[in-house]
Amino acid sequence: MDLNGFTGRKVIITGGLGFIGSTLAMKLVDLGARVVVVDSLIPEYGGNLFNVKGYEGRLKVNIADVRDEFSMSHLIRGEDFLFNLAGQTSHIDSMENPYPDLDINCRSQLFILEACRKYNPAIKVIYAGTRQVYGKPDMLPVREDHPIRPVDVNGIHKMAGEWYHRLYYQVYGIRSCSLRLTNTYGPRMRVKDARQTFLGIWIKALIEGKPIDIWGDGLQIRDFNYVDDAVSAMLKVALSDKADGEVYNLGSEPVSLKGLAELMVRVFKGGEYRILPFPGKRKAIDIGDYYADFHKIGEDFQWKPEIGLEEGLARTFDFYRRHIEHYL
Amino acid sequence: MDLNGFTGRKVIITGGLGFIGSTLAMKLVDLGARVVVVDSLIPEYGGNLFNVKGYEGRLKVNIADVRDEFSMSHLIRGEDFLFNLAGQTSHIDSMENPYPDLDINCRSQLFILEACRKYNPAIKVIYAGTRQVYGKPDMLPVREDHPIRPVDVNGIHKMAGEWYHRLYYQVYGIRSCSLRLTNTYGPRMRVKDARQTFLGIWIKALIEGKPIDIWGDGLQIRDFNYVDDAVSAMLKVALSDKADGEVYNLGSEPVSLKGLAELMVRVFKGGEYRILPFPGKRKAIDIGDYYADFHKIGEDFQWKPEIGLEEGLARTFDFYRRHIEHYL
Repeated sequence: MDLNGFTGRKVIITGGLGFIGSTLAMKLVDLGARVVVVDSLIPEYGGNLFNVKGYEGRLKVNIADVRDEFSMSHLIRGEDFLFNLAGQTSHIDSMENPYPDLDINCRSQLFILEACRKYNPAIKVIYAGTRQVYGKPDMLPVREDHPIRPVDVNGIHKMAGEWYHRLYYQVYGIRSCSLRLTNTYGPRMRVKDARQTFLGIWIKALIEGKPIDIWGDGLQIRDFNYVDDAVSAMLKVALSDKADGEVYNLGSEPVSLKGLAELMVRVFKGGEYRILPFPGKRKAIDIGDYYADFHKIGEDFQWKPEIGLEEGLARTFDFYRRHIEHYL
Repeated sequence: MDLNGFTGRKVIITGGLGFIGSTLAMKLVDLGARVVVVDSLIPEYGGNLFNVKGYEGRLKVNIADVRDEFSMSHLIRGEDFLFNLAGQTSHIDSMENPYPDLDINCRSQLFILEACRKYNPAIKVIYAGTRQVYGKPDMLPVREDHPIRPVDVNGIHKMAGEWYHRLYYQVYGIRSCSLRLTNTYGPRMRVKDARQTFLGIWIKALIEGKPIDIWGDGLQIRDFNYVDDAVSAMLKVALSDKADGEVYNLGSEPVSLKGLAELMVRVFKGGEYRILPFPGKRKAIDIGDYYADFHKIGEDFQWKPEIGLEEGLARTFDFYRRHIEHYL
């Protein structure tokens, strides 16, 4: 697909200083878009000013919280595209204190969609959904029509947030699409803790010369997308009417956690892993094996992951070997 | 089932001055329970002090809003049963202003469940769910495993509220059960407008000598439970561990709206109906035909509706002929 459709277009990205948001923002700048990134830089979340290093003069950074109804309502006016990536992502945090998760993943989404409806009904909205809404799968690979069965508060709220987007399309014609992301990794991901994905602390462990800790038996299966592949899916669906009101899985070749750890140690050229029993509070919300069926986006948009795990990990280690101090 | 299990037990009912809540409260008083009803008497909602007329000295009325976290947290302590019926029920209101619906149907549910988890983990919770979560059915009758597909903001939030209850059972062992109610009718229902169910304004129309307005072609199919049947289902599931973590449909014999209107005119011994095109904003969230498969609760609890539509309507008209002035 020709991505020149973004040249000269106005794009706003919530969570735009985060891992995926910043990668998307810089790509859009390169494509000639006029980009505003909105982020509140909450320390526990993914926003990091270093993420847009080198692009400071080429995009606009607007510090604001998506829970700030009036600011969001102003910022959305006149934009052509909204990449709606801001979110509370920690499953554990959502269980320990469900209210910030509710405010960010539900209430703010209503603010944003109401603002679109009232002030910018022609905007195109791409929502960052999550595989988490499927819960423990009935069968693998998981298709988009698999029953929704969230296993934590975060999953319930991400499910509601996605439904809002579908509803505002069905009822008001606000053109929106949700991508159900799986584990996404790459440069600029949060590595100081497991709030974004466990892969972050695995990378940090290797960089710091500590062992990778695998919980469970290491046989749990997951799939992983390199961030550029997730970004390319977002760009493709944004430019096409075919995606309006739709939900698409992203995904890739499945791998066991033990297989992933072995690959990481090999690509990193050092380190070790160990297999440990599940801590209790994580066990309660574990989902067993998961990998996506991503044929639907493949058929509609000729999307498939281009960067394999080995290459993606190599690029990621290279980034953190040079920049780890900005991510601790 | 022997309902003597409620004798001497402590019961709290949110939305307890509402239509179903008050009917449930008085039944529990008759069964020997010590009952607290919590209600905020918001004029647009179902609460009405007249609903507990004759029982004023035999139950405790506590005026409070479920959005009041500290009051709810106090009230729940020491109770044996929570019938959690408070909710924003208007589909149209949820679309016009989604935030009160979010606060009542999501945020408050989290307050309540967090309070149970922290201060009363042995409580048994019955949640008033709704058929609305199914949206436009794929097939009829609708079973509990039908895909969830809400068509309005209220449906999304009721879905989330139900998921919270299931989650707090799965993760924390809070014993909860959701009944997905269908159209419930009977004495004490809100009749001044369609915020609870369209049946309310049909009853009011007949009482006031005006025609019943049917939107669409009159062939839409629905099912209806007389309030005593809905209450009996709640009481049965409350007394059994079998319901923990489960979801049950209620339902009854399906009938077309035209068939219902004809029956109402016959039972009322007067009046007329007319068939009108759908107003636009209702059309967008209409679900077509619906009726429930309620075998699951039948098998687990030997529940079935006992009061047929003709008898239920006769009792309802009798009530409103005597008391309509308290419901306008």
